Amino acid sequence: LKPRNREVVLAARPAGPATVDCFAERASDIAEPADGEVLLRNVYLSCDPHLRQEMDNDRPLPRPISSRVVGLVERSRHADFLPGDVAWGQGRWELFSVCPGSSLTKVDPAIGPISHAISVRGMPGLTAYVAMTDVGRPAADETVLVSAAAGAVGSLAGQFAKMAGARVVGIVGSDAKADHVVRRLGFDGAVNYRAGGVLSEAVRAACPAGVDIYFDCVGGDALEAALAVSNLHARFVLCGMIASYDGQPAAGVRNLMQAVTSAVTMTGFRVSMHRHRLPWYATMAAGLLAAGRIRYAEDIRDGLAAAPAAFIGMLHGDNIGKRLVRVNEDPYLRNG
Amino acid sequence: LKPRNREVVLAARPAGPATVDCFAERASDIAEPADGEVLLRNVYLSCDPHLRQEMDNDRPLPRPISSRVVGLVERSRHADFLPGDVAWGQGRWELFSVCPGSSLTKVDPAIGPISHAISVRGMPGLTAYVAMTDVGRPAADETVLVSAAAGAVGSLAGQFAKMAGARVVGIVGSDAKADHVVRRLGFDGAVNYRAGGVLSEAVRAACPAGVDIYFDCVGGDALEAALAVSNLHARFVLCGMIASYDGQPAAGVRNLMQAVTSAVTMTGFRVSMHRHRLPWYATMAAGLLAAGRIRYAEDIRDGLAAAPAAFIGMLHGDNIGKRLVRVNEDPYLRNG
Repeated sequence: LKPRNREVVLAARPAGPATVDCFAERASDIAEPADGEVLLRNVYLSCDPHLRQEMDNDRPLPRPISSRVVGLVERSRHADFLPGDVAWGQGRWELFSVCPGSSLTKVDPAIGPISHAISVRGMPGLTAYVAMTDVGRPAADETVLVSAAAGAVGSLAGQFAKMAGARVVGIVGSDAKADHVVRRLGFDGAVNYRAGGVLSEAVRAACPAGVDIYFDCVGGDALEAALAVSNLHARFVLCGMIASYDGQPAAGVRNLMQAVTSAVTMTGFRVSMHRHRLPWYATMAAGLLAAGRIRYAEDIRDGLAAAPAAFIGMLHGDNIGKRLVRVNEDPYLRNG
Repeated sequence: LKPRNREVVLAARPAGPATVDCFAERASDIAEPADGEVLLRNVYLSCDPHLRQEMDNDRPLPRPISSRVVGLVERSRHADFLPGDVAWGQGRWELFSVCPGSSLTKVDPAIGPISHAISVRGMPGLTAYVAMTDVGRPAADETVLVSAAAGAVGSLAGQFAKMAGARVVGIVGSDAKADHVVRRLGFDGAVNYRAGGVLSEAVRAACPAGVDIYFDCVGGDALEAALAVSNLHARFVLCGMIASYDGQPAAGVRNLMQAVTSAVTMTGFRVSMHRHRLPWYATMAAGLLAAGRIRYAEDIRDGLAAAPAAFIGMLHGDNIGKRLVRVNEDPYLRNG
């Protein structure tokens, strides 16, 4: 019996917060790669917050879900790839993806877990690195506040700030995450925004010298709290606004006047413009991981069918580290 | 009969929008300058938006209103000043102010109207100049959007952008102001935000190539509209948020995600940090005015008693150009 492909597609536009009912599964024959294409047996799919924004657009349904994947070359009609090679690229939420070979990047399984190619050594890591070191530019003894600090990007951004000598405080959504960023990642402090009370007061208590750099993937209340505690000439790096992605009416930021008072520079950051730096970054990240200079958590769910719930859970913050879905066996897994 | 001083003071904290009832007038003897001090016969008082924020603080009432003034030296116990000299500095809303001589700057009445020392040649002008040319940095053919474009700062900011070769569009609050900025100041277009309709659509129509630089003294709806139309790598200069000064609950800015999408840099600007540049700027501004390269409107009300209504009217946008109050005769007035 010939194996079949299975795919999770977007089946409905969410009216408010996304639910698993917005997704559907369908089966099809596995496509044959055309000239220049590669058939990838996907191993890991990425759950990225920006997919939630994509769900709101009005293109026809059902439609595939574009997603970074890392997998094994099954068949190749591109000279750079042979069966068995590991590669990452832009695929779909499915068991097998056909991709142009020119869009894939080979992954050396000897340098670390292959999943890292789409997490700590990939675009989430590059986001943390460039946004923190190039835009935020923390100096020794400055205070850096990081939102979504236990997440795929924030967890690294904070560690890069620590390497620059800064004092780093994370905003997180649970006590377990607070523990994770302080005990495991070496942050100097953490604020659980779900602990109740006024967030800006909790941030002020955790940042007694004020905030010099704020790394934002959240927006909303967290951004307001950071503005309230901002020091003169603070730098805010705006990488995302996940607080307003999941169908909530966007919470307005009411104290932007503080950006005038503190002469804050707020810079919107898009990692896509820095993609050309990924090969250098990936090599560096592998070295830092190998040397124990940075640590990185992945939060992996198993099975294609788990993808919708894994994604929605991530939007609600049920992950520690990068949320991935494993849809085929990982032959390089240490404990596999 | 010895002349008396009269002063307008803050008598009540506004519960919502400020009213003239928040102010009171009181009379006193004219103070004698102590050693190192100067007695100034104030001619012009400044009506500055930030006074509205000062009104909300909880220091004891009634209290004096600190304000930039320009006037004539009446008596001097400071070696740099002689009776009859013109000087500007930080005084109060009153007929005569005693100031430390070290805090006053002499004004040459030959280079232009003495009122210009606290308007186009003064801190409002310096704000427009540094914020636009140093922070916004318009290049030829870029589109510059200016809020409060008929006001004390915006009217100049737009003209400095024109001098850099940019296409300049102003947001204003009346058709008369739209006429003023286009016909008199040379802006390329104007949007009347009170004309009804969706502001971002009107801005988009007036800025068909998008917005590269936004000069903001307003915040709120105008800032949201500018974000909606922002080009990649747009620069936003945040100089003030007058929309939220007058006791309204601060309107939250809901589309900050656009700053991420467009990789916008938003920079809060405080002119006080650039005060040391005022002597150079003032000389340059006088030259530009004399050469007809820039134009500047002042909107002057007469009499100390008119100050509260003049100030509140300015908060509501009833001024074209810099709102001043003349409290004593200006002996240098051309038509005086």
